[in-house]
Amino acid sequence: MADIHFDYSIALEAIKYGIDGIRLNPGNIKKEKQIIQVVEEAQKKKVMIRFGINAGSLNKNIMEKYKEPNYLALVEETERLLEFLKKIDYQNIVISIKSSNVLDTIKANNIIAQKCDYPLHIGITEAGFDQSGIIKTTAGISILLYEGIGDTIRVSLTGDPVKEVLVGHDILKALGIRRSGLNLITCPTCGRCQVDIYEIAKKVESSLSDIRTPITVAIMGCIVNGPGEAKFADAGIAFSKKEAMLYRKGELIGRYNTKGAIAMLQKEIRGMSVE
Amino acid sequence: MADIHFDYSIALEAIKYGIDGIRLNPGNIKKEKQIIQVVEEAQKKKVMIRFGINAGSLNKNIMEKYKEPNYLALVEETERLLEFLKKIDYQNIVISIKSSNVLDTIKANNIIAQKCDYPLHIGITEAGFDQSGIIKTTAGISILLYEGIGDTIRVSLTGDPVKEVLVGHDILKALGIRRSGLNLITCPTCGRCQVDIYEIAKKVESSLSDIRTPITVAIMGCIVNGPGEAKFADAGIAFSKKEAMLYRKGELIGRYNTKGAIAMLQKEIRGMSVE
Repeated sequence: MADIHFDYSIALEAIKYGIDGIRLNPGNIKKEKQIIQVVEEAQKKKVMIRFGINAGSLNKNIMEKYKEPNYLALVEETERLLEFLKKIDYQNIVISIKSSNVLDTIKANNIIAQKCDYPLHIGITEAGFDQSGIIKTTAGISILLYEGIGDTIRVSLTGDPVKEVLVGHDILKALGIRRSGLNLITCPTCGRCQVDIYEIAKKVESSLSDIRTPITVAIMGCIVNGPGEAKFADAGIAFSKKEAMLYRKGELIGRYNTKGAIAMLQKEIRGMSVE
Repeated sequence: MADIHFDYSIALEAIKYGIDGIRLNPGNIKKEKQIIQVVEEAQKKKVMIRFGINAGSLNKNIMEKYKEPNYLALVEETERLLEFLKKIDYQNIVISIKSSNVLDTIKANNIIAQKCDYPLHIGITEAGFDQSGIIKTTAGISILLYEGIGDTIRVSLTGDPVKEVLVGHDILKALGIRRSGLNLITCPTCGRCQVDIYEIAKKVESSLSDIRTPITVAIMGCIVNGPGEAKFADAGIAFSKKEAMLYRKGELIGRYNTKGAIAMLQKEIRGMSVE
């Protein structure tokens, strides 16, 4: 996928060299003739084109009209694009409409999803980093996906791009769209808890991070919700004051001390993985 | 707020000692007589009662009917509670319906929100920890809040409870419900970027973490979306290949080298805070 700005001729070159997809920014590649030339070349080689509309690089005349890059400005730039797309005879098109503002992104995508059938690529652009970046991204993408909007996703976080992929994966897991690897159910450490659930859970997770089989694992610190969660997980431990109860698919299979329970849980999970 | 399980008499004691609120779990405090006694004492002292229904501790006969703690089981336990609440004359009631499963939590809250007007306390229980816990929590809470459901929120993460508050705060900020402190717009580090945006943004954030005035700050690595985002932030830097452009509320106020630009940005933001 080649992300092209300003100069359409780079898109032509990228297509010539066999790229799989082209992203064009209609905010800075504006001349219809140039876009048509890219579309024609893409069509010959069956290359997908994504038109990526971004709040940070909207057309000048749209910005003059709206004064700020709000969802109405995003919608109007997308509507102009849809008008243009009617004139061309190519369907291998994806549209993305992104803002760093979560609500503007959601509103603009909602409106455009009603107006066209092109696949939508969704994400919060320039979301930031670490906790607040992950939260903005998750809020935006998960609300849209829950509404049934969004065909591909992009997580845009400042920092190591590998992290972006892991965050996207966890969003899809949270919404039940993808199931892969451990799904950990662990309790907040409240007054009822006698063991260090955080350390135990981290240890279990990191020792089994290679597993791709979807396995729900509960690690619970007390007898209020512990046995209930542990029973309905594929494998689970519920700690009580005296001991740890180990469950396999709803069945109590043993009572152990803390250390023994962790080792047995790891063994259980490993046994359930099909790798 | 006293979180009471199993023994209703502890609730009575807590009310006697002047607690602000009581959480009762109808999954393990089941006797109507006992609950009525707690309600009567709460009423005398105007103490709020939250009935907290949790997938991990549902009533035995509901579990026998549904076999697993899915959203239908959560809904039926809540419906039984609503039947009971009709019999008492006390409105200082909050209901919470939680599961560690994001979709079950959303579906159950949607159904109950249609059936009653009690305030709903929302969250994903036993969500896990770190990245995946934050993502499950954000997905669940933000989808519900976006639908207009939820009057108070709870973030349940394994680990330091201070983190739970910070995550909740960031969820409310992402959805535009609360505005406080810096809202950072920073770009993913793509091929166009010539500086270490992650380090720069972390430095700016940590040096200004005491600020409570809502200030949108853009720190952008290139000229595609950089000037656009920086202009519409309260303060922003857009780095180009040669220099850094500093913006204040849409106006270009200077061009600097990297180090100078960071110092000037920090000064700008500090000047905008009203503390």
